[in-house]
Amino acid sequence: MPRYTAPVEEVAFLFNDVFHIERYNNLPGFSEASADTVQAVLAEGAKFAEEVLQPLNQLGDRVGCTRNADGSVASPPGFKEAYKLHVAGGWPALSGDPAFGGQGLPFVLGTIMNEFYASANMAFSMYPGLTQSACAAILAHGNDAQKALFAPKLQAGRWSGTMNLTEAHCGTDLGLIKTRAVLQNDGSYALSGQKIFISAGEHDLAENIIHLVLARIEGAPAGTKGLSLFIAPKFVVNQDGSLGARNALSCGSIERKMGIHANPTCVMNYDSATGSLLGEANRGLQAMFVMMNEARIGVATQGLALSEVAYQNAADYAKDRLQGRALAGPVAPERQADPIIVHPDVRRMLMSIRAFNEAARALLVWTALQADLLHRSPDPGVKQTAEDLLGLMTPILKGVFTDTGLQNCLQAQQVLGGHGYIAEWGMEQFVRDARITSVYEGANGIQALDLVARKLPRNGGRAFLAFTAEVAAFLKTNATNASLKRYLVPVQEGLDRLQQATMWFMQHGTANPDNAAAGSTDYMHMFGLVALGYMWARIAKTALAKMAEQDGNATAMQTKLSFGRFFMERTMPETAAQLARITAGAEAVMAVPADAF
Amino acid sequence: MPRYTAPVEEVAFLFNDVFHIERYNNLPGFSEASADTVQAVLAEGAKFAEEVLQPLNQLGDRVGCTRNADGSVASPPGFKEAYKLHVAGGWPALSGDPAFGGQGLPFVLGTIMNEFYASANMAFSMYPGLTQSACAAILAHGNDAQKALFAPKLQAGRWSGTMNLTEAHCGTDLGLIKTRAVLQNDGSYALSGQKIFISAGEHDLAENIIHLVLARIEGAPAGTKGLSLFIAPKFVVNQDGSLGARNALSCGSIERKMGIHANPTCVMNYDSATGSLLGEANRGLQAMFVMMNEARIGVATQGLALSEVAYQNAADYAKDRLQGRALAGPVAPERQADPIIVHPDVRRMLMSIRAFNEAARALLVWTALQADLLHRSPDPGVKQTAEDLLGLMTPILKGVFTDTGLQNCLQAQQVLGGHGYIAEWGMEQFVRDARITSVYEGANGIQALDLVARKLPRNGGRAFLAFTAEVAAFLKTNATNASLKRYLVPVQEGLDRLQQATMWFMQHGTANPDNAAAGSTDYMHMFGLVALGYMWARIAKTALAKMAEQDGNATAMQTKLSFGRFFMERTMPETAAQLARITAGAEAVMAVPADAF
Repeated sequence: MPRYTAPVEEVAFLFNDVFHIERYNNLPGFSEASADTVQAVLAEGAKFAEEVLQPLNQLGDRVGCTRNADGSVASPPGFKEAYKLHVAGGWPALSGDPAFGGQGLPFVLGTIMNEFYASANMAFSMYPGLTQSACAAILAHGNDAQKALFAPKLQAGRWSGTMNLTEAHCGTDLGLIKTRAVLQNDGSYALSGQKIFISAGEHDLAENIIHLVLARIEGAPAGTKGLSLFIAPKFVVNQDGSLGARNALSCGSIERKMGIHANPTCVMNYDSATGSLLGEANRGLQAMFVMMNEARIGVATQGLALSEVAYQNAADYAKDRLQGRALAGPVAPERQADPIIVHPDVRRMLMSIRAFNEAARALLVWTALQADLLHRSPDPGVKQTAEDLLGLMTPILKGVFTDTGLQNCLQAQQVLGGHGYIAEWGMEQFVRDARITSVYEGANGIQALDLVARKLPRNGGRAFLAFTAEVAAFLKTNATNASLKRYLVPVQEGLDRLQQATMWFMQHGTANPDNAAAGSTDYMHMFGLVALGYMWARIAKTALAKMAEQDGNATAMQTKLSFGRFFMERTMPETAAQLARITAGAEAVMAVPADAF
Repeated sequence: MPRYTAPVEEVAFLFNDVFHIERYNNLPGFSEASADTVQAVLAEGAKFAEEVLQPLNQLGDRVGCTRNADGSVASPPGFKEAYKLHVAGGWPALSGDPAFGGQGLPFVLGTIMNEFYASANMAFSMYPGLTQSACAAILAHGNDAQKALFAPKLQAGRWSGTMNLTEAHCGTDLGLIKTRAVLQNDGSYALSGQKIFISAGEHDLAENIIHLVLARIEGAPAGTKGLSLFIAPKFVVNQDGSLGARNALSCGSIERKMGIHANPTCVMNYDSATGSLLGEANRGLQAMFVMMNEARIGVATQGLALSEVAYQNAADYAKDRLQGRALAGPVAPERQADPIIVHPDVRRMLMSIRAFNEAARALLVWTALQADLLHRSPDPGVKQTAEDLLGLMTPILKGVFTDTGLQNCLQAQQVLGGHGYIAEWGMEQFVRDARITSVYEGANGIQALDLVARKLPRNGGRAFLAFTAEVAAFLKTNATNASLKRYLVPVQEGLDRLQQATMWFMQHGTANPDNAAAGSTDYMHMFGLVALGYMWARIAKTALAKMAEQDGNATAMQTKLSFGRFFMERTMPETAAQLARITAGAEAVMAVPADAF
């Protein structure tokens, strides 16, 4: 049976020592987020994740969800009770807008709570997961009546939210969407069509389910320019907020799938269902993007979350399991064998996971702080840079954290040998659950294309320049710190390669965009490594400073330095191979005729 | 619903054009394997795999195996009938010893048939899979009576075979085995203990199941030096070959696991079961190694097999699925969207899989030919080199083909986006099935250690020198072939790096073996890349020659050149990162105290 311990101390180290979030005390929400408050929230959230959510995770996977003959969907045992506690504990409203009942705490804190939830029980975390994003889209694009009607109950978690984009014939290419919307006399729309892959499209946890549905108004242009976004609740909501009739939408079936069994992936049928327009007609994609960007950070968080819980269980196993002897001689001669943690190859697997996890959590905090600055800072310059950096890093986090998260779960599973393959130990569930994260909310190839074709060139490369300037400034400021050198040189090399790759795209991608697309995935991962390397350099600097000041646990800081060194020596060299692949260009890739595949 | 087409033409190209197997016509078995005979066998085997085995694959996964209250295990629907056809078709005996009813055809042909079987239905292929290995161990170490009693029926497939090594507390470290063997008055042994993870330990396909069981004779030394190997049949076999009483061994339970659901992974209980000693007492591990080495090539074959079938289905999808437009402008303007094969990133995924598959199949053929030379050549020098090369390449094929096979299944699954995650499309089953291959028959970390600590230094590095001399000779011979240069330079670079890494191990691994162990997995993969690169160079040479001679399909040869170029440009650069990791050594890896993990 797997276990989970939320990394509360790690988060405190990042908040207080690495990123000094007290310096944002002038911003709304941050003023209430004193170190003590944050610590209390984290401790309480950790307890909920560890004691309520985690124990339901394996059973949820085994039992899964059941669609009944009437189209209702039953969640796995214990999920209803856990969801009630989630709502009663005020967790849904943590970073919510205070104007609609939210607690207004920083987004970065809510993001960390998302990590704890997803580590403990990813399928459970997906019920409230999209509610936050749906609410964000309503708050960004809704009219006052819509905000007042939906936001408080979504933020409170009494109602849940979904995204309805994909149809059977189109996922990535939303311009092909066929779902129709017909204007009714009362100003509402009648929605008809079928959506697939709708996570938590129907369930028994919340009082109502608010579907955000992308559809085409009769007579609207073809393609994405004719798409509008609609709010279609499971139960029609009366003006006074009470629930009205059951809407003409239903779950037609749930998918049999590789993982996240405890969250129903629904086919949703709309049969003249009542919806209200959210935002402007024919500008649905823009409204949906608010939701998607929030959701992408959420999915990145899941990648890290599964990597973390998989690491913890693999490390436990490696310390417990007795097999063989250390090459240099027994370390536990009194026992029949040494624990397998003595073996360099086992350590290599564990270290590569944790060296990612610690830096990825730092980068998640760094990125979530950009979102907080964007939404809370009064300074237009700060806002713009934050928006640039958030936009740039969103596809990188989504692509890199999920691809690496999956690889890390596989690596952690490998540590357990045959036991990793058996359901009982829980490791194979982490792999199956993690597998979806590289796919949903935009497959990672789409993230890479978004990065290379949109985020990179936008505003003359302003975001790229802001990021590289920040890293270069850090490297320059600390160049004379000899004990940090080991952590700076590989980052500098990575940064140089990233700049070379970017230059290569500028030179060869303009004339032939295939040259940029053929290298986009490698570029996304290279960018991720440079950003993670930068985080390690900052962590190492902090750890060295704390050791010098005899502040805190020196062993813990020394351990960080070792994991950081591992990252520099073992992970950063990958940027050399990535650059070689990127600069190989598209010629070989495009040379093969389609029918020869 | 996934499909499978066996790569018969590919195999003919390798046999006839690349490796010219007709030059082995002087060897037993090869004389009967004319190009026409081989072609007929491949075509017939392909038909069986495609039409009988493949259609059962998805259903087998869904239904799985059932253990009944009496300990019997029911295989999934259709498996019994398919197994009967497998036996009736003479497939089990294909490469078997003619002295015991086998057809005596080359091992390389049987290996290719194993690929076809595993692509079509991996779980089914595992029932006969270990029978071949069990029979090989009996033929190598059994006395005449044992050979006569067991080999004919195992080779005919009427009986199946298993390996019983692992116990709950030990998998890798077999020295800890507790199962006991007590000598009886009649010369047999009574075996008592529990084995776990026994594939096809109990089932309803064969008339009898012959378990090869590793156990410790009363009073034998502790550790691996006290282990003996026993033959313990499900039904005791009478002297005349007829079946006697049910032996005191049974399946206690079957595991719930990630994949290969259609093959039962059994807990086997031995309760004074009757067994006969195979080979010498206390030398069981040596006898078992015959079986394990055969089985490791078999598992490597599974890695390739799943990569192949996953590729085929992903390529089909990419050619069919209409989403978006080519970056350079529509290629199918008459349709609502272009097929996703137009996108460089989709091509990159498909090409990386197939660029591996074609070279891996070549390397599998090359390696299986070493096994044929070892067992069939009359020339002691040829035999020795073949034994060296086979021993060297076995862990590399096992480790690299299975790790890469799994990655390729994941990549192929990614091509399908959300549909890849849904059971219906079959892609997620390939991933779940492939996952076991990096684990069983020695986890890949053990393969890497076997390579670095045993195979590399053995006989003064004779095997390594034989391999590198072959590659270097090929590079030298073809150095003036300008059109081949693109395929030679990266192999030369890879070979140089492999030699640098080997040298580094010699310099730093002797004083501190952790230095070699910390780089062992990277070294194994680097070695694999160099060997695969060498295969691509040979394929490219053949393709260029055939094009120059206007022999065969020029488009097919041109396609090979493109895939080979992709491999050189996109896969070979990884050796640079591997070398950097290897030469980083063990310091950072060993610096962290165990309890800090």
